This record gives sequence, C-alpha cells and structure tokens, in this order.
Amino acid sequence: MVGGGRDAFIGAVHRHAMALDGQYELVAGALSSSPDKARASGRDLGLNDARNHGSWQALLDDELKRPPEERIDVVSIVTPNHVHYDVARAFVDAGFHVVCDKPLVHTSAQADDLVARVAKQGTLFAVTYNYTGYPMVQQAREMVRAGAIGAVRKVIVEYHQGWLATQLEGGSNKQADWRTDPARSGIASAIGDIGSHAENLCASVTGLEIDSLCADLTSFVPGRRLDDDGNLLLRFTNGARGVLIASQIETGCENDIRLRVFGERGMLDWRQEDPNHLVHAPIDGPRSILTRGSPWLCESARRACRLPAGHPEAFIEAFANLYGGVASDIRARIATGVPASAEQADYPRIEDGARGVRFIEKTVASSASDRKWTPMR
Amino acid sequence: MVGGGRDAFIGAVHRHAMALDGQYELVAGALSSSPDKARASGRDLGLNDARNHGSWQALLDDELKRPPEERIDVVSIVTPNHVHYDVARAFVDAGFHVVCDKPLVHTSAQADDLVARVAKQGTLFAVTYNYTGYPMVQQAREMVRAGAIGAVRKVIVEYHQGWLATQLEGGSNKQADWRTDPARSGIASAIGDIGSHAENLCASVTGLEIDSLCADLTSFVPGRRLDDDGNLLLRFTNGARGVLIASQIETGCENDIRLRVFGERGMLDWRQEDPNHLVHAPIDGPRSILTRGSPWLCESARRACRLPAGHPEAFIEAFANLYGGVASDIRARIATGVPASAEQADYPRIEDGARGVRFIEKTVASSASDRKWTPMR
Amino acid sequence: MVGGGRDAFIGAVHRHAMALDGQYELVAGALSSSPDKARASGRDLGLNDARNHGSWQALLDDELKRPPEERIDVVSIVTPNHVHYDVARAFVDAGFHVVCDKPLVHTSAQADDLVARVAKQGTLFAVTYNYTGYPMVQQAREMVRAGAIGAVRKVIVEYHQGWLATQLEGGSNKQADWRTDPARSGIASAIGDIGSHAENLCASVTGLEIDSLCADLTSFVPGRRLDDDGNLLLRFTNGARGVLIASQIETGCENDIRLRVFGERGMLDWRQEDPNHLVHAPIDGPRSILTRGSPWLCESARRACRLPAGHPEAFIEAFANLYGGVASDIRARIATGVPASAEQADYPRIEDGARGVRFIEKTVASSASDRKWTPMR
Amino acid sequence: MVGGGRDAFIGAVHRHAMALDGQYELVAGALSSSPDKARASGRDLGLNDARNHGSWQALLDDELKRPPEERIDVVSIVTPNHVHYDVARAFVDAGFHVVCDKPLVHTSAQADDLVARVAKQGTLFAVTYNYTGYPMVQQAREMVRAGAIGAVRKVIVEYHQGWLATQLEGGSNKQADWRTDPARSGIASAIGDIGSHAENLCASVTGLEIDSLCADLTSFVPGRRLDDDGNLLLRFTNGARGVLIASQIETGCENDIRLRVFGERGMLDWRQEDPNHLVHAPIDGPRSILTRGSPWLCESARRACRLPAGHPEAFIEAFANLYGGVASDIRARIATGVPASAEQADYPRIEDGARGVRFIEKTVASSASDRKWTPMR
Repeated sequence: MVGGGRDAFIGAVHRHAMALDGQYELVAGALSSSPDKARASGRDLGLNDARNHGSWQALLDDELKRPPEERIDVVSIVTPNHVHYDVARAFVDAGFHVVCDKPLVHTSAQADDLVARVAKQGTLFAVTYNYTGYPMVQQAREMVRAGAIGAVRKVIVEYHQGWLATQLEGGSNKQADWRTDPARSGIASAIGDIGSHAENLCASVTGLEIDSLCADLTSFVPGRRLDDDGNLLLRFTNGARGVLIASQIETGCENDIRLRVFGERGMLDWRQEDPNHLVHAPIDGPRSILTRGSPWLCESARRACRLPAGHPEAFIEAFANLYGGVASDIRARIATGVPASAEQADYPRIEDGARGVRFIEKTVASSASDRKWTPMR
Repeated sequence: MVGGGRDAFIGAVHRHAMALDGQYELVAGALSSSPDKARASGRDLGLNDARNHGSWQALLDDELKRPPEERIDVVSIVTPNHVHYDVARAFVDAGFHVVCDKPLVHTSAQADDLVARVAKQGTLFAVTYNYTGYPMVQQAREMVRAGAIGAVRKVIVEYHQGWLATQLEGGSNKQADWRTDPARSGIASAIGDIGSHAENLCASVTGLEIDSLCADLTSFVPGRRLDDDGNLLLRFTNGARGVLIASQIETGCENDIRLRVFGERGMLDWRQEDPNHLVHAPIDGPRSILTRGSPWLCESARRACRLPAGHPEAFIEAFANLYGGVASDIRARIATGVPASAEQADYPRIEDGARGVRFIEKTVASSASDRKWTPMR
Repeated sequence: MVGGGRDAFIGAVHRHAMALDGQYELVAGALSSSPDKARASGRDLGLNDARNHGSWQALLDDELKRPPEERIDVVSIVTPNHVHYDVARAFVDAGFHVVCDKPLVHTSAQADDLVARVAKQGTLFAVTYNYTGYPMVQQAREMVRAGAIGAVRKVIVEYHQGWLATQLEGGSNKQADWRTDPARSGIASAIGDIGSHAENLCASVTGLEIDSLCADLTSFVPGRRLDDDGNLLLRFTNGARGVLIASQIETGCENDIRLRVFGERGMLDWRQEDPNHLVHAPIDGPRSILTRGSPWLCESARRACRLPAGHPEAFIEAFANLYGGVASDIRARIATGVPASAEQADYPRIEDGARGVRFIEKTVASSASDRKWTPMR
Repeated sequence: MVGGGRDAFIGAVHRHAMALDGQYELVAGALSSSPDKARASGRDLGLNDARNHGSWQALLDDELKRPPEERIDVVSIVTPNHVHYDVARAFVDAGFHVVCDKPLVHTSAQADDLVARVAKQGTLFAVTYNYTGYPMVQQAREMVRAGAIGAVRKVIVEYHQGWLATQLEGGSNKQADWRTDPARSGIASAIGDIGSHAENLCASVTGLEIDSLCADLTSFVPGRRLDDDGNLLLRFTNGARGVLIASQIETGCENDIRLRVFGERGMLDWRQEDPNHLVHAPIDGPRSILTRGSPWLCESARRACRLPAGHPEAFIEAFANLYGGVASDIRARIATGVPASAEQADYPRIEDGARGVRFIEKTVASSASDRKWTPMR
C-alpha cells in the first residue's frame, strides 16, 4: 500500500475491504509522504520493519530486490490525487499489478500514457470506483443490458454532499485541505472527487457514452480555489439526455449518490444511502423493490452478496467486491497465465479511470465556455 | 365556470376544490367549446338551464344582463390553454374577478396585455399554480423567508411524469391530445404543462429571480410535435444556482414534483407525492421531518390545514386553499371595498402567471440556441 | 346533522366529506347539546333559521311535520358517543336513514336493539369507520378475497397516537375531555376511540372473525379514568393469529393506523399516513408498491378514486367515499325502492358497528380477567 | 473456531466480523461435527493442518498441550444450539475465553451452570446478540439512559421473517433443518432463534426487566415440530407495557427486526433493515432522523463507526463491533490483568445469554398455560 497512513480516510477503507474476505494480506507499505509518519503508520498496522518504508520509491526498490515469490502481488495506491501518476507509472513499468484510487490522474495526457504502459505490460490495473461494487448496481447494469427497461432515454445521476458548505480548508481538516487544493486535487474538486463517481456509475450501469456536455461549476465558499458545486446537462451518443449533479455544499446531505435510468419500457432507481434496494418500475405495472440477497436477482448480483436478504451489506462490502474482482483476476493470471474475463473478474479498469479524467477536463472546459455544448471527444 | 365539461380532467378538480369548504356555489357555466356538450355537462352538474350556456360569450352576455347582485362573483377558466386569453380578457374587461388555470396564456405579449387590463380594472386574477397551496410548501416559504436555512445557494426542482412515454395523442386520450398540440398547448408541452409548475414552486418558496437559463428540450416519442422532456440549468440573480427537470417520458413516474433548497445554514426538501411532510436539515444537527398540522408550524401553514397531524390532506385540499385565498380576497373587497393583503389572501397572482409564460418562452428559445445562457429579461 | 357544532372536530370532517362530491346539501341541524351554541353553529354554516334547531328532538319533530318531499334524506349523528343511542333510535324509529359516527353505542344491548330496529324499518344505517373508505384499503380487501396472498395466517393491526401522553383532560381540550370521561366515552378510551377502528380495518380487509382475544389495557397518565394504551393477542376462527395495538400515549405518533396481513402466499401492508400506497409482497418475488389511481387496480379501488396516480387523495376523500356509498344506496332506494347491493354501495353497516361494540366489551373484560383467552361470543 | 464449516451460515459471518478490523487471526478450528467435513472446511480457510481438527475435543486437547503463548486467545462457538453447552463448558473449565452464538444453551439449568463456571474462572464469555452492535442501537441505549425520552412506558419489539413460511425442513436446507428440530434447536424455533434477539435488543436499549409475559406460539406449517410464530404481551417491573412479535412465517419479510420505545417525553424507533438511522421524536417538536457517523451522536455510538455519515455500515460491521469489544477486553486483561469495564468493552455477556434462555422457557410455558401472566422469575 502506498499512502493511507495516520489521518487518511480512504486508506483505512481499502484495508477493511481487503481484510473482509480474507483474500489479502498487507505485507508492505509506504503509508505517507512523510517518512516518519509512514513508518509510524506501518507500525500501527503491524507491518514488518523490513517492509515498512518511508517512501514509495524505497518500497518499490525493496520489492524489486526480493525474489519474485516474496514480492507483493498487487500495490494499492491510496494517496491524494497528485501522487497517483508517478507511483502508478513506476509500479506498472516494474511489472506490478495496481489498484489505484480515483480520479486516476490529473490530466488526460497522464491517463493516456498510463493506459499505454499498462497495455504494454499486460498487467492488471483497477480504479476504485467503489460504488459499482454494490450488488444492486450490478443488478441494475444487468437489467439494462437485458432490456428490462428498453432503450434508455434519460439518465439522472446525482451526488449530494454538504460537508464543504463552510470553509474547512486551511485548518486542521486534512481531507478538506487537499481536496480543495489545485496542486493536489487537480483542476476540480466537486467534479473531480465525486462527479467522477457519478460519471462512472452512470456509464457502468447504462453503458451509454457521453456525446457532449454543458456544465456550470461554481465555488460558493469564499476563498475556495476549486468548484464546490457542479451541474451538467448531458447528451449521449444514442440520443439519450441526462442531468448530472455533484455538489459538496448541499447542506444536510451526507453522501447521497443516486442514479435513475428511464428507458422506453421502465425505470431503475438506486440510492447509495439505501444500497440494499433497487427500485424497478415497468411501464405497465407497479413498481417493485428488489432487495440484495434475493434469489431472483441476476447471477452477478448474487455472487456479490455475502449475506441473505434482510441482513444488509454496505459500503465496505461493496468496496471489498472490487478487491474480490481483482483477486479473482490475479488468481486467474497465476493459475492460467491469462487474465480472467471481465465477467469473472468484475472491477473498474484503467480505461474507466482515463474516461473519468477526460470527463473532468471537459466539464471544466465547458463551464468556462460560452458555447452550450462541449463535445467529449 | 368556463370549460371543464365531460372528459375534462382539471375542471372536476376545480369543482371539488370549490365545494370542499362550502365557500363556493357553481351557478353558471359554459363547460365546453361544443355547445351541446357544454349544456349536457352543465345538466350533469345540476346547473339551472338559464345559466347553462353553450359558449363562454353567451355566458358573459347573460351575466352582464343580470342585475349585479345576481351575477357571479368570480369566473373559473379551466379550458385548454389556447382559450385562456380570449376568455380572460373578456371577463376582465367586463369587470369580473377571474381564476384561470396555468399556463396563463400562449405569449408574453398576451400575458403583459392581461396584466395591464387587470391593473386597470383593479379586479382579482388568480392563476391556479395549485402546488403552492400545500401547507408544507407554505411552511417552506416561511422558513426561507425567516432565514432558517440562510442565504439560498442551490435549488433543485424536479417534475417527473411518465404518462406520455408512449404516443397517446391521436387516439382517444383527450388530455394527451391537446397537451401535445402546438395550436392548443402553445410552444411547449412538458415545459409548459409541468415545467411552469416547477418554476412557480421554486419562485414561490425561494423568492429568487432567475437571471438566465440554459435549456435542453427533447421530443422523444416519434411524431410528437412538442417537447416531452426538458432539463435546465438556472442562474439566479443572487448568485444561486439551480437545476430544473420536467419530463413526461420518465416511465414509472406519476406526478412527482419535488423541491430541494440548499442554503448556507440548512436544507429544505418537499415532495408532492408525500405532501404532508417537509424535511428540514440544519447544517449543525440532524434532519427533522415537519408534519402538516403540527403546532410548531408557522401561522400560514397552520391556517392552511383542516385536519390535525396524521390525518393527511392532499391534492384537492391544496387546490382548495387557493380557492380559499380567492374567497377571502373577494369577501374583503365586498366588505371593505379594497383587496385583502397578500398575507390575508394567499394565492398566485397574474404576475406569477405572466412570469411563467416568459419562463416558457425563454426556455424554448434557450433550447434552440447555441449560446449557453439565455437571459430571462 | 346532529352534533358537530363549534369546537367539534369530527363534525367538520363530515361536512367536508359531504361537500366534496356535491352529492349532499346540509339543510337542517341540531349542532350542539347546548341550544344557544347549536343555533350559533348553524348560523355559522348558513342554515336556514327554520331548520336550525336547539336540540335533536326539535329537529326530529320539525322534520316529521314537513311533507315527505321536504324532509332530509339522511341524518348524520356526529355527537360524542353517549348521545348516539338515543338519537339513532329516535331517527330510525321515525323512518330516517342514519349515518352515525363510531363507536356506535355504549353497550351491546344498545347495539343489538338498534340492529333490530333498523332491520324492522328497513332503513339505511351507516357507521363511519372512515379508514375503510381509502381506495388502497379496498384494493387490499379485494386482493385478499381474490386469493392474492393465499389463506391468511397472521394479522398485525396497529393504531398509534401520542396526543394523550399528558393530562389534557380537565382543561380546555374538549376532545380530550369527553374521550377520557366514562360517562361520555363509554367503558374504554384508546380501545373505544381508535381500537375499534383497528378492529374494523382488520375485519373489513381480511374477512376474518375473531374467535377469542387476550387484552392488556393500561391507564398511564395519572388521574386518567379510562385506558390510554391497549395491546391484544387475537385468535381468529380460521386459526389465524393476530396482534392489535391501540395507544394514545405513544409519544411522537400522530394518527398511525397500519394493517399488515400475512397469508400463505404473500403479504399486504397499508399505512394510513401514506394512504396512496399499498405494499404487496408475494412469496416468490419482489415486493411491489401499488399506487392509488393506477389502471391495474381492482374496479372498486378505481371507482373510489377522483384523481389519477401521483395526485394524492387523503383523509377527507376517504371519508367522502363512505358518504358516496351512502348516497348511492339512497339513490337506489329512491329510484328502485330497494337498497343497492353492498358492492354498489360500499360503506360500513350497523352490523359492523355492533361488532365493534362487542369487541370493546370483550377487550375490557379480557383485560380484567386472569384467564388468557376471552371468547368473542 | 468450533463449527462454521461448509454450508454453515453464521460461521462465515463470524469470520468476516473477525477479519474486518484486523484484530483477529483464525489459527485453529474444529469446523464441523463431521471430522472429514471439519478438516476440509479448515483447509478451505487455510488453517494449518496441525491445528485443523476433526472434533472440538481434539482441538481443546491440542490447545492445552501447547505452551500458553501459542494457544488461542479465545474460542468462537458457532455450532447449532445443542452443541453450545458441552463445548462452552469444556473451554471455560479449561480457562479459555469464549464467544458463543445465541441462544446460549437449551435450558436455564445449563445456563446457570455456565454462569457459575465463568464466574469461577473469571474468564470472558460473550454471546453474539449481534444487533446490539449497531451504532444506532448504542445511540438509542445512551439516549434512554440519558433521559432523552423520559421514563419508558411502552415498548414494541418486532422480528419479522418469512423464510420458513413453507416446509423447507426435511430437504436440503440445512439451516431450516436444524432450526426446526427440537433435538438441535431446543424447545423453540421462532422464539429461540429470533425472539431471543428481540428480547435482548429490548433489554439492552431500555434497561427494563420483564416482570411477566403472556405468549401465544403457533406452528403454522404442517408437520413443523416447533413454533414458527410467536406473539407476546409484556409487563415490565417499572410498570411499562410491551408487545413482542417474532415470526418466521410472515411472507414477504426478510430480516426485519425493529424496536420502538415510547417514553413520557418522546420516542425512539430503529429498524435493522435501515440500520444507519435512528428516529427520535420528542414530545414537543418534530421527529428527527439521527444518522450513523454524525458528530452529534454520543461517544459510544461514534466509537462504533468506521466511516463518516452517508457511507453506510451494516450487519457485518455491527457484528465486528461485538468482536471489537471482546478484543478490547482481552487486550485489557493481557495488559493489566483485569477485565475492561463494560463501557470500554461493549459486548453482550453470559448473563444476557442466560436471561435469554429463561425468556425462551417462560415464553413456551406461557404459551401452554391458561393463565394470562407467567412471571419471569
């Protein structure tokens, strides 16, 4: 693991997710950009001193010195965004499998470069768009694919947060600090941090490609250097229309990401704060509430469940499903020498990460433009 | 009453709303543009033959011949949209109070003309934006005014319907027929019929003025002549941002109008399909669910309730509250010779109707434009 | 109308319900047991002085003096409970149709006597168990009858209120005063006032007959003379089991009556505070949410709707459905000389009222008994 | 671990719960009563052959032969109920700390014996009433203790399941098989398996003691040998009243355990299928929805959270909180030689387990009795 030391948020989530199903063991790390903090954090977690490093470069050097059978199988990069590219590039070039948090990198140039390097190495590269790991998201995706709602006409994807409604940056809140700092977060905050999740959720479930978008980004909090609210109109290549909302200043909201997909024959509605349910309304009958763990779900959704219906699973379990997909792929590669199919090993790929970076760039460009529509390509 | 005969939808709602509180008696009508149907409809309702007319002109003529004490106090215009202007103008010019359904008229020129005529006559003119009649909408409005959520930064107003997801026009569905016919509905369908409600709900609760808007209107159903889906970005004059969605092709949706208002200090959330509740989330505490009929509501919300909490009131009751406001105003004018204050007689005025017409025009213009922002003025 | 004057609660509801559909005209009344208040209340409502009486006896005398074509068609008795019997008996004996609020009377002896008198007269006698007037309750009843959930095994019926959690009686709260006074309310408060609604809702939807019951009634508020909380186990004659809860001291509850019915093949769940929805969970598929106004509802539920789906109807509309059933029956009797069938004229009958009185008596007896089961007969 | 091999349900949950926070390592096991299956299950989980045993006796023998520093810290007993007593007694007598699933044992004689043995040894003994591990349950408990709802008057605790609505036993469903078998499940099924959870949830949150109870247990499914539906009236020693429902034949229900507590000053409402929320309705204001992870929760609830508000946690996380409490206690004992306080190490104790066994016995006795009230002591 690179990053995720003391005071980090998402690093601990990655560790819970890895631990949950007993498929991962954390054996080495460089848990902070500060060497002392890195090593202290590693000791907190029981890392062996020999593999508890003060920098990611030291971690990589050490791994490469070890015989292959002792090396890590995969590295998790859970640092703030600006560190992703260098670390990911180095580990990919060294032939390691990588799990990287989102958004992938700061620029499409970096993203395209990484995509090419991964393709060249043939290694695994996962991006932790964790919301697609929820079983009911997988159920929604399968239902769209199977035509349960007919051709998609309209998508509404929303990500409502309120935690940045006041100026938290510049104080002791490390999370607020780096997310609102262009040097670390990149060119966007709300759209980068959570809008990219919304884009991925939409793409993952609907399979639609954005043709062009029209964005209005705002910084509401005085002194803030990046957007804290973004609203977009979307046009998809199949003619469907969409609305995407991502905000960090919507007071009273916690982590409310929701997707509604309207097809010619019905509708699907999923909300992350009530993740064990999926609403399906066919055009010609009453709406039904599908629940995680039910025997009538599709196979991929059922595989993504640990517990029967009524025994809720949540954020960490969904996150662990991504790690489970990565583990399946690594096992397949070890066992057979070839990657598992996307169906056997279900997790977001580097191409999803690269598309997300382009989405952020185009959104920022659109917001600055007087033209209504900014094409995605 | 003009319009609202057999097969009409909203006319019956107006009659229920008038009847509910015993403040109105339906004494005269021209209930259809077809003279035979008009008279048959009037007989269904027990109208006296002498006041059951085959045309609105006949109704007006007859009223003017009667001595003032026998005349109607107010006329309700509940025809399809294209008839509103002629009828309203004639009755206003003749000195009658008017209640008119929305959208007010087809063009801003007509609307401005009506506003001027009403001003000249000094008569009452109400527009039945009925959703503002709900007690919890009034509670929301008062809370915004009182600063309960601080300065408003963001508004999301949505109106989701799915009934026009297939081609119902051209068959036996009279409601679908006229709403999708430019000659009768005007330049817009989804934005005119329901988007105008969304605009009014937003304006009524927040008091904000739209500075400019960016719209994307679509006709999804093959052969349809007007928009059946509209999505807008809004900028308000105070710097707030907004999203407005109005759709008639969102399968699985019934009549789902919802308003969320995010201020610097908190949030309000109201949904018409659950109208007896209002969610209030302050920035520094848990969200609370205010219920209609509770003693801790503001005075105007309490006045708008007939029943104690837990005994739900709904659509007709909210509609009746508008008629109640009109009745209060008429009584005040009769008793004192001057109109009641807006506080004593709470109902949407002709200025709201005119603003709604302008909103429709600007939305249609924006949708046709390559410019991102279309100013409201 | 007898009762329902100034300060009354339910009388106004009856008047709204009568007015809503334009089928009733209030022409005569004795609106209070205090003659002055009765007449003042009648003047508030615009009653003609000649038919605005100071006592129900005067009202009855006056009606009998009038020629049949001038007489009222039906009397509504909306007084506190202790007055029901004398008024109802007198009007029945005089040949009038009667609508009477619940619980019907104080004792089974009175109830049986009334049943016999009504049978002898052949007149109409409705009891306003208003919750059965909700369209989705009628949908539930039809689904049970049609076998949609198989044989019923278990019923949970709950009625939660909290308004009497403190001592409101003895002060200015007239509603609390008479409901907690044995002389006026009868032998029970929570079980009489709201438990009887729960019993009726259960019986109406399930068609099951209670075989025996086991009750625990409590008066929590110091000084209170009647029960304010009741909890019952039920055994039905078909072997089904049930739980009935009726409480007036459940703080935070408003008017939360809910029925769940579990059959061998599925479940139905309806809550009055969300009356436009009915949850149906079949044993072999996801739960669905049926909504009022949907085309796939049964005929009786559709007939009970004024508005399309998504335009909510509520308490007064449900109440008005009972009055609508009464009106249909009266019209049929006038037109054909014979009563309408129960299907054509759907409202609770005097037998339902009598069964409710017996339920109250048996519940009170059970609560005082050491035996577990008290038979209903 | 003893039990929890292939085909088991709850054993896997225990392992997820132990793994989640990285505080446990599974080092030894006897995972089935069938030696071959036990060892195969252990190999599935990567147990070292030397500590992968064919019987719990072999496991215990082996542990006792090892030097203390190599021994397990704690044993988890996750077998069907009938095995609990022998295993627990043996491990307690040998001085091991024990985590045991519920219900604790078959009889109060066994339970009292275990309590005495644990007291004598001074060892830790936890019973996995996992629902008390939810942060919002801990919040509810603290609010009751702090007087937020005043003195408790009424409790409604419900546990609705539907999975045994048909005859699953006697086929391939191992879970149904043992739970409906008196030899393995004990004297009760619904009341034992889930009613005991309801009793514990109620006792844990309210702190109330049941004085007497009145039960009606039924076996609805033909051929079933134990109750599959139970309904109880409760009287608490402080005068409060209660209703407890536990059913396995409520079609359409999944795992719906809910607790409502009504005090003189307010109400609390928690549902396991929506576990991140707690409803609090004060008597004099609107109801509020407390969410897990909020800064305004009590300290114990905040400690029980891994993730911020809006990032839901669920069943496994709650289960892991119990294991976290056990780990804290073991660490304290190792570090200081004395147990942690109940506040520092929050988990259900053997006394809770023993009380649960007595509750089951009294419920079964009450159901067979003609007397209304069966005292708990």
